[in-house]
Amino acid sequence: MSNITSILKQHYLFSSMSDEDLVKIAEKSEMFDLKKQESIFFQGDEANNFYYIVDGQVSLARSSPNGQEKIIEIIKKNEIFAEALIFMPQKAHYPVSACSLEKCTIIKLKNKLLKEILNDSHKTSMAILLNMAIKLHALLDEIDSLTLHGASYRLVSFLLHQIPKNNIKNNKENETANIKLDIAKNIIASRLSIKPETLSRSISSLSKRGLIKIDGKHIVINNKKSLQEYLFNN
Amino acid sequence: MSNITSILKQHYLFSSMSDEDLVKIAEKSEMFDLKKQESIFFQGDEANNFYYIVDGQVSLARSSPNGQEKIIEIIKKNEIFAEALIFMPQKAHYPVSACSLEKCTIIKLKNKLLKEILNDSHKTSMAILLNMAIKLHALLDEIDSLTLHGASYRLVSFLLHQIPKNNIKNNKENETANIKLDIAKNIIASRLSIKPETLSRSISSLSKRGLIKIDGKHIVINNKKSLQEYLFNN
Repeated sequence: MSNITSILKQHYLFSSMSDEDLVKIAEKSEMFDLKKQESIFFQGDEANNFYYIVDGQVSLARSSPNGQEKIIEIIKKNEIFAEALIFMPQKAHYPVSACSLEKCTIIKLKNKLLKEILNDSHKTSMAILLNMAIKLHALLDEIDSLTLHGASYRLVSFLLHQIPKNNIKNNKENETANIKLDIAKNIIASRLSIKPETLSRSISSLSKRGLIKIDGKHIVINNKKSLQEYLFNN
Repeated sequence: MSNITSILKQHYLFSSMSDEDLVKIAEKSEMFDLKKQESIFFQGDEANNFYYIVDGQVSLARSSPNGQEKIIEIIKKNEIFAEALIFMPQKAHYPVSACSLEKCTIIKLKNKLLKEILNDSHKTSMAILLNMAIKLHALLDEIDSLTLHGASYRLVSFLLHQIPKNNIKNNKENETANIKLDIAKNIIASRLSIKPETLSRSISSLSKRGLIKIDGKHIVINNKKSLQEYLFNN
């Protein structure tokens, strides 16, 4: 199996393909290196190829009528781009320009070939749909945990900022003592621009770790030091 | 067009379907309400249906051998779940249990029907692949911006924590004065567990907003107040 075949096999678009189809694709593909700021294709070019990034990052940018470029997306290592155009019924043109953001290694793949393989095999189409559905759920999950992560970080940062206001003497005892904050949850949510349901999940996640305690409508800080550690370890 | 048809049309799985197919699907579907903590299906049940959440949130959980439940994913309003099983070649069983996290309105859809539609029409399969590819890129983009957002928030929070150490007198002048921090970028990156490239993008995004300035290897804080405002507005 060639180098290209084994690289592509890692990606959800190719992982369910037969070895025979993969070899066919690899034979017509091309791996090449780019320096920083090299163009890969321009907006409006006929879309005959799609790309897999072996290493580096690529920006996809759209030009506005006044000639300004706006970066639409940054594609990273192990991701593909311009593959959506394969699934279009008619011939397509790239809606964006692609350019390397740093030194890159890229595999260029032929749209036509993948289109033929999908046309010939309902099984392959279904397998790709399955992989994409799994990937979509994984990404939704990642977004969920990033949102929660951000919310917890903000909440901890906010709570730490509140302490001195309630305890003017910042002696050593305060580092570990219980501090009951007189702030209702809905006030915190609106102050931190966090959705109430996200704040609730964030509070219960922090209280499961023993970092805070809920006492009616109020938040009790068990240990200032461990909250500060949370901030620097997350 | 029925209520269900017009709701489903918003989702990428159905948006490219013909009205005829959508009506066929809607006729065999069922919309119902759930209270908080009601079961939708159990792990191991035969997977005959998939679900669209009109309102509310649903948890997907897996039981471990010792009987403990672990939440794998939280599905939100306007999302579908258990649809990946449709694309499997053989009959499938749910790998998770689904339960309402709050009051929900849900549409239950028949796997068999969608499978038949995909079998009959290569065009529909391609259209769904296109929508999924577009959705995947949008999610990758969202993850990218959440990561950057989190990085900027951490960086600002970190920078604010550094100020008193460098300026013992915390008088009013310091609120607006330039403070040159003697910390190299690579130290900040490792301290905040942010990838160096994410930190670089975050620094340039904050400096574009005029919140910080880069002076060689060091970061200059232009205005403490505006940094604090950033923390509470983001």
